[in-house]
Amino acid sequence: MNGRRVALVGGATTKFGIRAASWPELVQEAGAALFAAVPGLDSDRVDSLFVGAAEPERFAFQSHVAPLAAEQMGLKPFRILQRTELACASGQSAIRSAYAAIASGLSDVAVCVGVEKMNLPSMAEANTSMACVMDRPWDGAHGATAPPFFAMVAQRHMREYGTTEEMMAAVSEKNHRFANTNPTAQFHEKTFSREKLLRLPWVAPPLRLGDCSSMTDGAAAVVLVAEELAPEFTDTPVWIRGTGQYSDFHNLAHAGSLTEWTGLRRAAQEALRSARLTIDDVDFAELHDCFTISEIIEYEALGLCPAGQGGSFVLDGQADIGGKLVVNPRGGLLGCGHPLGATGIAQAVEVVQQMTHRVPAARQVPRPGVALVHNLSGSANVHSVMVYSREAAA
Amino acid sequence: MNGRRVALVGGATTKFGIRAASWPELVQEAGAALFAAVPGLDSDRVDSLFVGAAEPERFAFQSHVAPLAAEQMGLKPFRILQRTELACASGQSAIRSAYAAIASGLSDVAVCVGVEKMNLPSMAEANTSMACVMDRPWDGAHGATAPPFFAMVAQRHMREYGTTEEMMAAVSEKNHRFANTNPTAQFHEKTFSREKLLRLPWVAPPLRLGDCSSMTDGAAAVVLVAEELAPEFTDTPVWIRGTGQYSDFHNLAHAGSLTEWTGLRRAAQEALRSARLTIDDVDFAELHDCFTISEIIEYEALGLCPAGQGGSFVLDGQADIGGKLVVNPRGGLLGCGHPLGATGIAQAVEVVQQMTHRVPAARQVPRPGVALVHNLSGSANVHSVMVYSREAAA
Repeated sequence: MNGRRVALVGGATTKFGIRAASWPELVQEAGAALFAAVPGLDSDRVDSLFVGAAEPERFAFQSHVAPLAAEQMGLKPFRILQRTELACASGQSAIRSAYAAIASGLSDVAVCVGVEKMNLPSMAEANTSMACVMDRPWDGAHGATAPPFFAMVAQRHMREYGTTEEMMAAVSEKNHRFANTNPTAQFHEKTFSREKLLRLPWVAPPLRLGDCSSMTDGAAAVVLVAEELAPEFTDTPVWIRGTGQYSDFHNLAHAGSLTEWTGLRRAAQEALRSARLTIDDVDFAELHDCFTISEIIEYEALGLCPAGQGGSFVLDGQADIGGKLVVNPRGGLLGCGHPLGATGIAQAVEVVQQMTHRVPAARQVPRPGVALVHNLSGSANVHSVMVYSREAAA
Repeated sequence: MNGRRVALVGGATTKFGIRAASWPELVQEAGAALFAAVPGLDSDRVDSLFVGAAEPERFAFQSHVAPLAAEQMGLKPFRILQRTELACASGQSAIRSAYAAIASGLSDVAVCVGVEKMNLPSMAEANTSMACVMDRPWDGAHGATAPPFFAMVAQRHMREYGTTEEMMAAVSEKNHRFANTNPTAQFHEKTFSREKLLRLPWVAPPLRLGDCSSMTDGAAAVVLVAEELAPEFTDTPVWIRGTGQYSDFHNLAHAGSLTEWTGLRRAAQEALRSARLTIDDVDFAELHDCFTISEIIEYEALGLCPAGQGGSFVLDGQADIGGKLVVNPRGGLLGCGHPLGATGIAQAVEVVQQMTHRVPAARQVPRPGVALVHNLSGSANVHSVMVYSREAAA
């Protein structure tokens, strides 16, 4: 990594869920929460705003959302103002853009806000809109929206490796248990046992209701600053150490193996290489558990276990506190819900809160020095990874 | 400006117009044109792709457009992949993002592609979608789409300063005349005289058909590289010297003067300050003439003439070749059409072609050393400016 070092100095998340709030109201709420969480933040100091939002044009019939968000947050950006879109990874894309802007010297103090309003009067309309995340004429129009696609992935993983529904339920149980400690999570179901999860209705076999993240309303915001300004905002900055992305196909006809996510492997390698760290240095990870099978394959792609062993990995508690690597202590997309544009930002908020020991003991990672954050988008055809650390690069 | 210097080493534009081509086909066409225009470009070298697109979710029912564009262009980005959206300025936003990525060291070779497919089977649907560029519940829903809004601006400018329809027609005549020399422009009307323009039907009084840019299909692409790589691609790199943006409102209830675009003044000041240049150093400008009145107010905001004198400025030929500053030699949005995401990239293509003396003599700027490119978006509530130069910064 060249350029100036960039510090993440604070963030906040709205309550995620089915919210009686519009897109602009969610942004306003995230802004208020951000200013409350970062007392040293003066709106006049914010020179740039990056908005992560996947489909406001469809979910809220609103485009040109960057100046709308600026107005709702009381900001008047004078360096950079834009929205970034990368479907389910739109939030992380906003952070990457802010990182590049600050590292290059274009920006000194940047806010990233992610938001999605997905619960509409017509959920049929909302679900139809999700089809345009995939290749619309070739894949989406033929039913390959997220649940059916990831159901195929799960079926294939079960066939190739003997992965079971119980293993998938173990992911869901873990993440919902963590979510119970997170007041902004959508779900606080105290009795989400594996047994109960295995009795929930199918969404797309073998994926049951508890295997799927939900259509969620929510917003989250973080502040990034140039290294020399960090002490003005916090004594405990979190540093962006590495980034990686990879995409090698879009149309499903061009997909390789459904169960071996080489794109994630490449993106993580690049993020860790640029951070000059290895996966063994990582203390916790926020992985994109849009479906339980996703998290299982992600363990494998990150090299936490051999190919095909992701199910056993979680069943053995290796992704839990006390295991090899704590995964999704925030509660994940499964427990927190998945407002597309907000997710990547909310993961970064968790990184800050973990590293500053401000989360309840039940989900506090013991030595939260290095975190890896992952988002996939579409049919897992794009993988985006960031590496954060309490220690700045040498 | 900090970080590495960034060179624009080539670009290409599809034919703009009412095209029998889908969104993916337009991107593919722009990619093929780019590789033809930059023979040294190897797809394996392209580490990042930035896609400028305003409303593919509505115009093409397609989101997650970045990996789709990558696939259509034969690219497999391994550093950064994202779409940027800023309505009518989406293309320039992609360039700014690529600039920051390269300057920071995150990227070495980045492609920016801008695209919009606006001509739909139902133009009523397309026009309705334009309403979501404005503040949808407060402004768009009450009819404040682009033509009515800019008609109010024109009415106010006429009332305050005595600006006439003939002055506006002079903008249109100039830009259509330049467009006649540009094979990729939408319009090649040889007899777009001021007299004829003044007889065209009203769109929103006082704006007639010739005062308005059109709903256009098209795509454009450029390549940006780190300074040390520029010699591999060209002997005549164009350097990105400065950028500026400003936004101080979104909802029209918060707008200040309709005729004094302070946001543009601030954005241009910042872009020129960061380039260490002044407006007097600029040899030609690509200004956002979405409507004729826009270009007139832009002369004023840039300080090319006093407030209220923009109409006389163009009537006197000061924005033409031989005048004070050549404005929109490409043909502008009026002559080329305005495929929202493509416009900002197509302007950059014109900058390259002007500075390398590859345009027809009728629009060749005599000494094209420094160019200023401007896009506004929404209700002129966001202004985006870039400064390019044949000479690298010291």
